[in-house]
Formats: sequence, C-alpha cells, structure tokens
Amino acid sequence: MTGRTQSRGGRPTMKDVAAHVGTSIKSVSRVLNGEPGVSADTTERILRAMADLGFRRNDLARGLRQSDRTGTVGLVLPQAATRYHDSLVRGLEEVARRHGSLVLTASSGTAAQERETLVSLCSRRVDGLVVVPAGTDHGFLQPEQAAGVPIVFVDRPPHGIDADLVLTDDAGGARRATSHLLEQGHRSIGVIGADAGIHTVAERLRGHREGLTEAGLAQRRNLLRPGCETAAQAAAACLSLFASPDPPTALFTLNNQCTIGAVRALHTLRRARSTALVGFDDFETADLLDPPVTVVAHDVGEIGRRAAALVFGRLEGTITGRSGSHVLPTSLTERGSGGIPPQR
Amino acid sequence: MTGRTQSRGGRPTMKDVAAHVGTSIKSVSRVLNGEPGVSADTTERILRAMADLGFRRNDLARGLRQSDRTGTVGLVLPQAATRYHDSLVRGLEEVARRHGSLVLTASSGTAAQERETLVSLCSRRVDGLVVVPAGTDHGFLQPEQAAGVPIVFVDRPPHGIDADLVLTDDAGGARRATSHLLEQGHRSIGVIGADAGIHTVAERLRGHREGLTEAGLAQRRNLLRPGCETAAQAAAACLSLFASPDPPTALFTLNNQCTIGAVRALHTLRRARSTALVGFDDFETADLLDPPVTVVAHDVGEIGRRAAALVFGRLEGTITGRSGSHVLPTSLTERGSGGIPPQR
Repeated sequence: MTGRTQSRGGRPTMKDVAAHVGTSIKSVSRVLNGEPGVSADTTERILRAMADLGFRRNDLARGLRQSDRTGTVGLVLPQAATRYHDSLVRGLEEVARRHGSLVLTASSGTAAQERETLVSLCSRRVDGLVVVPAGTDHGFLQPEQAAGVPIVFVDRPPHGIDADLVLTDDAGGARRATSHLLEQGHRSIGVIGADAGIHTVAERLRGHREGLTEAGLAQRRNLLRPGCETAAQAAAACLSLFASPDPPTALFTLNNQCTIGAVRALHTLRRARSTALVGFDDFETADLLDPPVTVVAHDVGEIGRRAAALVFGRLEGTITGRSGSHVLPTSLTERGSGGIPPQR
Repeated sequence: MTGRTQSRGGRPTMKDVAAHVGTSIKSVSRVLNGEPGVSADTTERILRAMADLGFRRNDLARGLRQSDRTGTVGLVLPQAATRYHDSLVRGLEEVARRHGSLVLTASSGTAAQERETLVSLCSRRVDGLVVVPAGTDHGFLQPEQAAGVPIVFVDRPPHGIDADLVLTDDAGGARRATSHLLEQGHRSIGVIGADAGIHTVAERLRGHREGLTEAGLAQRRNLLRPGCETAAQAAAACLSLFASPDPPTALFTLNNQCTIGAVRALHTLRRARSTALVGFDDFETADLLDPPVTVVAHDVGEIGRRAAALVFGRLEGTITGRSGSHVLPTSLTERGSGGIPPQR
C-alpha cells in the first residue's frame, strides 16, 4: 500500500478514483450509480480514471444482477438517422422488445460528440450498448464493459476495447459488383463514395480493387471520386467524371446517397440509359427509376437483430467467452442498370 | 386531516402516494428522483396516483433549478423512424445541441407501448419531452409537466393534458393538392391513405373534401382507399381502384409510402404517364421518377426545430404563459405528375 492512487492491497477504490481526478467520493459514487448531478466533463474524467486505474465495482458484475437492470439499451449512431439506420433500429427494437427492453437512440456526429453521448448514456445507466462508431478510441468504455454492460459495435471495428462486432461483407459485395460490370465488358469504372477513411468505404474500395485485379486490371486514380457525403456532392463528382477527357462507361457508387446523386447527374447528362451503374445498399425506389438500379443488397434489419441478440445473450449468460466478429453476407440484386454494355 | 390519502392541510405527500398505491415511500421517492429499482408497472401506478391525488413536488418546479438538469430531451415516435422522422430528429438535435442537450429517441408503437415508453423516459428523468403521439390519453404526463418538464406534442393533439403543439397545415395542403388536380379538369380523384383515425390523415381527407366542395363536387366513397400502412398495401389499393368499373383519372396519395406504392402500381399498369398524381410529403427520389412526382411539401426539420425551441424556451423561461398551437405551412412542388390532363 504505497501508491498514491492505490490502496487495500492494490485494488483501487472509489477514494483512489476521487483522489486521482481531484473530485469528491460522492461524485464518483454518483457516476457509478448513474445518478445525475455530475458534469459531463467530470463524469468523463472519472470514467477515464477508472479505466486508467483498473477500477472494478467490487460487487458482482452489474449485468448478473437482474434487480439492477434498467430495461434500456442504448444505440449510438454516427449522425441523425438515415434510411440505412431505420432498418437497424427496427431490427434492434424487434429483439429488445421481446426482452422487455426499451431502445434509446442518440446521435453522435464527431468523435468528441460521440464520447460525450456515450458517457452521458453510461452515466444514465443502460443494460447494454450498441455503437456504430464515429470516433477512433473507445477505451473509455472499458470500465462500463467490465461492470457487466455488454457493448456491441456495428459496421466498424472499435479501437482500445475488445468487444463483439457485427459487420457486413463490404469487400465481398464490392468485388461482386465490380465483377458484374467487368462481365458486361466494362474496363473503365468510375467510383463515387464517401470519405475513404471510413472503415466501410475502405473495405468497399478494397473489394473493388480485388475485382479489378482478378480481371488483370489496375485501379486508375482518375476514376476515383471519394469524399462525397451528400447526394449533391455525389452528383457533382459524377458530372466531373464525365467532363474528363477519358470518361468511364460504368459507375460503382458506394452507398445510397452516392447512388441517388449519380442517377440525378446521369439524368441531367441524358446518360442514364447508356451508363452502367451498380450501387452499394438497396433503397426504396431503386426499382422505380429508369433504368431500375442494380444494387449490392444486405439485410440491415438482420444486423440490428444480431447486435441485439449479442447484447441480451451476454446479459443473460447464454453467450459467454471472448468477444467475436460476425460478418453478414451481401447479395447482388440485378434490376437492369448494371447490365448496360459499354457505350461511347 | 381526515382523508385516507391526504395529510398536512390537504396537500398530498409522498406518504399519501405510497399509501394510495400500496407501495413503499422509498419507491415513490425513487420514481420522483429518477432512480432505478422500481418496476415499470409500479412506476406507472405511482405516476397515476400522483396525477389522481394532485401531488406536486414541494420544492421549486424542477425545471427552474439548473442544477437538477440532466441535459437530455426525450423524443417518442409512434414507430421506428421513417424518412419523415429523420428530418424531425435532425431539426430537434440541431437546436438541442446548441443548448448542450442530448436527444434520446424511443419508439412507441401501440398506445400501451407509448405509455410504457413515456413512463420509462420520465422515470429516467429528461429535461423535456417531444411526443408524436400514438395513444389517446396522455393525462398520466400531468405530474411530470407540473414538476416543470416541458412537453411538446407534434403532428397530433394530445388528450387529457394541455401542452404546446406543433402541427402542419394538413387540411390546407390537401385542399391545394385537390385544387391543382381539379384545375387540370379531373373530376374523378382516387385517394389512397393510412388509417383515417389518425389525426393527420383525417385532416388531409377533410382538406380534400373542402377542395371538392369548392368546385361543387362531392366526395365519392368508391374512390377512397384508407387503411394503407405500407407501400405494398397502397399499391394493392391502387390496383383495385383501376380494376373498378369507374376508375379515377387522377390520384391523391396521403403520405410518402402511399405515393411510392401508387407509383409502383401505375408502372405495373403502364398508367404512370397517363394518370395524374399528387402526393403528400416530399421524398428523396420524387424528381427522378417518370414522370417526376408533384408533392405537397413541408419542412419537417422546421417542425423539429420549432418543438425544440418550445422545450428550451419553457425550460429557460423565455416562453411563459399558456400552451399554444403552432401550425406550419405547406407548399405545392410541381414536378409534372400533377399536371397530366384526364385520359380514359
């Protein structure tokens, strides 16, 4: 018992955490018990100190005690809901409701906002957490996890924490989309997508490159248009591709918004019927557009159901052992736009 | 001091509430202070007893005490998010974030689920509530409101409670849509919508009738197809309209899902270019369909911002006095489908 922040044979106590942060034991207790009255900033410093010191509640892991349950699961999304997230929420709620649990959804936005949102949800106590991560470090969630709160990440792997993960076979789907276009004879495929720093985007780009490599082709930089966050940006990117001296004969768009933006631009250019197009993600009116849009489809509701099954399985002890990755498949829904042959 | 459930000069206390419900004072205190450990059922009975007995916290109204704030606003939607709700959430979050507050969204579903969801949110303490109501009685929220938690209803008026309300001019928008079709010479307009018991649907039907009446026409029952909750049901309703001996020459669809279902059916029937169509609510690909779809548009994000402004205005004392109704306007976005003349 010599350390400044350790007492009682090396196991840190609430007092140690309070001393480390420079706050009162009452504040630490409040954070631990999910009571209000501690600022977000102090809450975060307390949670970080718990992680740094390896603090553990010395009662049983919270998740094992039925009476401590709050009947709520937190879902954190990287931005306000999009069509994609609707299905995710619905899948999650379907399973949560069967377990008598309420899903509380919050948006994160930036990495800082994500941290604040997660800390706020934890301090209000949830039985489990499902996170579509925006930030790059989730180590601050370790004390919560250690206290018995199951945490499941969706779409993108977390950093600084070992947790269950539900992914889509992004690379496989992109490879399939690329092969479909190559089979029609296309050798010049424009790619429009969001920021390549996002895990799903990087994976889809990797799958596209693999598809090209299989056919003995290399990725050409001038055909790539990453960084499109909105349909309007995707439309502009599409226009710029066709304004270049060597325009593509086909397009692969990496999400819904990019697909819709590209279709809008192709209509403007009167190229919708002469340019092949495959989009990643299905969307509601894809079959009603002219031509109907071929997409890489995946069951987003199933991602939500799977994430919920992991949360409740861990909570109820039917799933034990180390955390794992679950990769869900994609399929190609051919509607017509992907079958257009190369034209100049 | 003679009443069974009243003491101290007629003002009910926590003890009175506990006695009324047949539970412990500790449970009542927990519900009041948003602490866990009380079942949803008991929580609800306690909240109902507080309403019945006229229980009020005897400290200052909670909303006036900055230190009691939890920095969260609850949003309850009648079902898992739809495209319409995305914009609502975004608008609400935009304003909440400026006030340093987190929006927690939960879905309700049935009236019973709504009550459970609202009770659960209240027992977890939120600074304010925004509700798109599904249920028919919201009197159980009175104690929460009396304790200083601003409650704003959206889209549909509540029952059993007097609260701020943000509505869309549904009747006005429907009247405008109907007049637009009548101006093209249509005298037989099919109407496809959701359950007519829903306030917004009833208002849109009323506006449609008023538009017909202005033109000296009466609503014909055989042209009405209510009760369509999904695009597939709307498509089936559309097919049935055109299978009748006296099919319409134009359609008015009362929401997004109905519009998309009707377009799908018109494509199947090869009638998309010969049947006029106006839909209530705009949607992302409306301009990309063939023909582009004319819609009654309204700014759903503004509904969210307005609701948030009411919550924070009440919370911060910049809005005082009796609750009021705020009706937001609609506009007709003409894209082509509404301008098709009658054809047989």
